[in-house]
Amino acid sequence: MLKIGIDAMGGDFAPEVAIEGAVMALDRIDAESRIVLFGDEKRIRELLAQHGCAAERFDIVATTEVIEMGDHPAKAFIGKPDSSITVGFNHLAEGKIDGFASAGSTGAMLVGSMQVIKPIEGVIRPVISSAIPVVKNRRALLLDVGLNVDAKPEVLAQYGLLGSIYAESVLGIERPRVALLNIGEEEAKGNAQVKATFELLKADKRINFVGNVESSYIFTGKVADVVVADGFVGNTILKMAEALYRINDRLGGGKSRLKSFLRPLLGRISEKLYYQSDFWDAMNYESVGGTPVIGINAPVMIGHGGSSAKAICSMICSMEREIKADLAAKLRKALRA
Amino acid sequence: MLKIGIDAMGGDFAPEVAIEGAVMALDRIDAESRIVLFGDEKRIRELLAQHGCAAERFDIVATTEVIEMGDHPAKAFIGKPDSSITVGFNHLAEGKIDGFASAGSTGAMLVGSMQVIKPIEGVIRPVISSAIPVVKNRRALLLDVGLNVDAKPEVLAQYGLLGSIYAESVLGIERPRVALLNIGEEEAKGNAQVKATFELLKADKRINFVGNVESSYIFTGKVADVVVADGFVGNTILKMAEALYRINDRLGGGKSRLKSFLRPLLGRISEKLYYQSDFWDAMNYESVGGTPVIGINAPVMIGHGGSSAKAICSMICSMEREIKADLAAKLRKALRA
Repeated sequence: MLKIGIDAMGGDFAPEVAIEGAVMALDRIDAESRIVLFGDEKRIRELLAQHGCAAERFDIVATTEVIEMGDHPAKAFIGKPDSSITVGFNHLAEGKIDGFASAGSTGAMLVGSMQVIKPIEGVIRPVISSAIPVVKNRRALLLDVGLNVDAKPEVLAQYGLLGSIYAESVLGIERPRVALLNIGEEEAKGNAQVKATFELLKADKRINFVGNVESSYIFTGKVADVVVADGFVGNTILKMAEALYRINDRLGGGKSRLKSFLRPLLGRISEKLYYQSDFWDAMNYESVGGTPVIGINAPVMIGHGGSSAKAICSMICSMEREIKADLAAKLRKALRA
Repeated sequence: MLKIGIDAMGGDFAPEVAIEGAVMALDRIDAESRIVLFGDEKRIRELLAQHGCAAERFDIVATTEVIEMGDHPAKAFIGKPDSSITVGFNHLAEGKIDGFASAGSTGAMLVGSMQVIKPIEGVIRPVISSAIPVVKNRRALLLDVGLNVDAKPEVLAQYGLLGSIYAESVLGIERPRVALLNIGEEEAKGNAQVKATFELLKADKRINFVGNVESSYIFTGKVADVVVADGFVGNTILKMAEALYRINDRLGGGKSRLKSFLRPLLGRISEKLYYQSDFWDAMNYESVGGTPVIGINAPVMIGHGGSSAKAICSMICSMEREIKADLAAKLRKALRA
C-alpha cells in the first residue's frame, strides 16, 4: 500500500481546503493508495464529517503545532517539533509514508527536504521544478523555478539530468528533449553562465540535449520537454505565466461564469476556441498542483500558498504518480553510473 | 518640419509592407511631420502608385544597396555604404532627418546607433526597451530587452534613470515609478547582480524608485511604470509575452476572423471580455511598433523583422512621439546634473 502524506494545516485556507482537496482526491487515486493527513485531529474529523466522508478512509496523524507563514522556517522547523510539517518529514524519513506534500511554508518544506530527507549523493543542488502546459495537452518541465540563483554551470547542467529522469519516469515522456533556456538559438548566445552550461550539457551523453530554447518556444512544446534555467530566470518565467493566466482569467477567460456558460457553445463553433480554454486552464496552477523538490531521497511536493481544493487534489495525484515512479531510486542509479 | 526617416528596405516583407505602413501612417502623424523613405526609388514609387498615393507626400532618398539578414552587421554597415540603413544613419547624424527607424537587421541598427549616432556622454551602456501593455490601456516600459547581458549593477541602475526620463517625456507618465525586476519583493531577495543594483537605485534621488517588482506584477501596472532588468531576463520576458500573445491569438484570440466577428457581440455581453481583447491586442508587437534605442544622441527605433504594415505604421507614430519629446536633450541634461 502506497501512503501519501498531506499536511492538513498547510496553505492560506487550511485546514478547510486541504481536507476538501483530500476528499476530492479519494476518487482519483488508486484503491491501494492511502492518504495520510497530518494535523489537528479534532478539526480534521469535523471537516471530514461535514463532507460526509468517513474518517476511516484516511490515516490521521495528530499534531498540535503549525508552522505559520510568518515564522522563521529553520527555527520553526526545530522549535515546533510537533508541527504538521516537522512530523510529516519525520514520518517520511522513517518510511512511514512514501511522500509528503504541503501548501504551507515553502521555507519549512525546503528545510525538511534538505536537512531531514537530504540530497541524494552526487546531487550538487536539489532543485524545484514546475510542470508547464504546452499546447496539445502535453506537459513540459521547467527547472529551476526559484531555489538556486547565481547557479554555477555544473549545477545548471545537472538540472538537465535530474529533469530528464523526472520527465521520463514521472511524466512518461520517452527520451525527453532537454534544452537550455537562452535568448537565442545559436550556440554562442547568452550570458557567461549559460554559455558555460551549454558546453557541459552538450558533453553529457546521458541526456538528449537539443540545444538552446528561447522563452518564445517553451509553451509550444515544439522544442523541449525539459527546460533548464537559473532559479532567477525560471522563477520569473513561472510567475509571469501565472500572472498572464490570472489576467486572462480575470478578463473573462478561465473559470469565469460567463466562460463556463459560453464554453460548450464556443466548443461547437470552433475547436480552436475550445483548445484555448484548455491551454489557459492548464496554465492554472490548480491543475499543476505542486512543485516537486527534485534531487532528494524521497518525494516532497510544495503547493502554492493560495491553493484551492482542486489544487490540493491535483497535488495529491501528482504525488501519487511521483511515488510510483520511484524517482529517487532512478536518480541514485543515474548518479552512480 | 519634423522628418521621420524610415528604412523602406527593412524587414522580412520589405519594401511592400514598409511602404504600406508608411502610407497608413500619413493620416496618423501631424500635418507638419514628413516621412523620409530610404531605399530603391523606382520600387518605392511603383508601390506608392499601387496604393494610389502621390509620391510627393514623402521625401525619398534613393539608395542602391540592402543589408540582408544574413550579412555580418558591422561588416555590411561599412561594406555597403549605399545601403538604406547606412545612408539613413548618415542622414540622421547630419541632422537631415530627426529620427531613423527600420525593421531590418537589428545588428546593423545597433552598429549605426553605437558608431554613428554614439552614446550620450555619461551613458555607460545604451539600452533597448519595449513598451509593454498593462491592463486599463496604459503602458509600462521594460528595459533592457536584450542588448546587454551580464550587466554590471551600475549599468542596470542607470537604466532606471534612462527609463524614467523616457517614460516621462515620451510616454507622458508623470514621476514614473521605477522598479527592479526581482524574484521577491523584499530588499534582500535575488541574485548578486540585483542585490547590488537595488542599493544603487535606492540611492538615486533623481528617480522615483519603488523597490522590487516580481514578473507577476509587471503586466498589471499596479507597481511600476519602468521595469529594470538585465538583458537576459528582459529578453526572456519579452519573448515569452510575444509567444503567449501568439498562442492566444492562434488559439482563437487576437485577430482571428472568428474573434473579429464575435468581438462586438462579446463587447455587448461583457465588458470584461471586451477588455480581454484589448489587453491581448496591446500585447501584440504590431501595436507596440518598435524598440527604441535609449541613451544615444538621436532617436533610433528597431522594428520586428516580421513587421506587418500595421507594425511599421505604429513604429512611425512612436518615432514621431519620441522626436517631439526630444529625449536625447533631456537625457543629456539629466546626466550633466
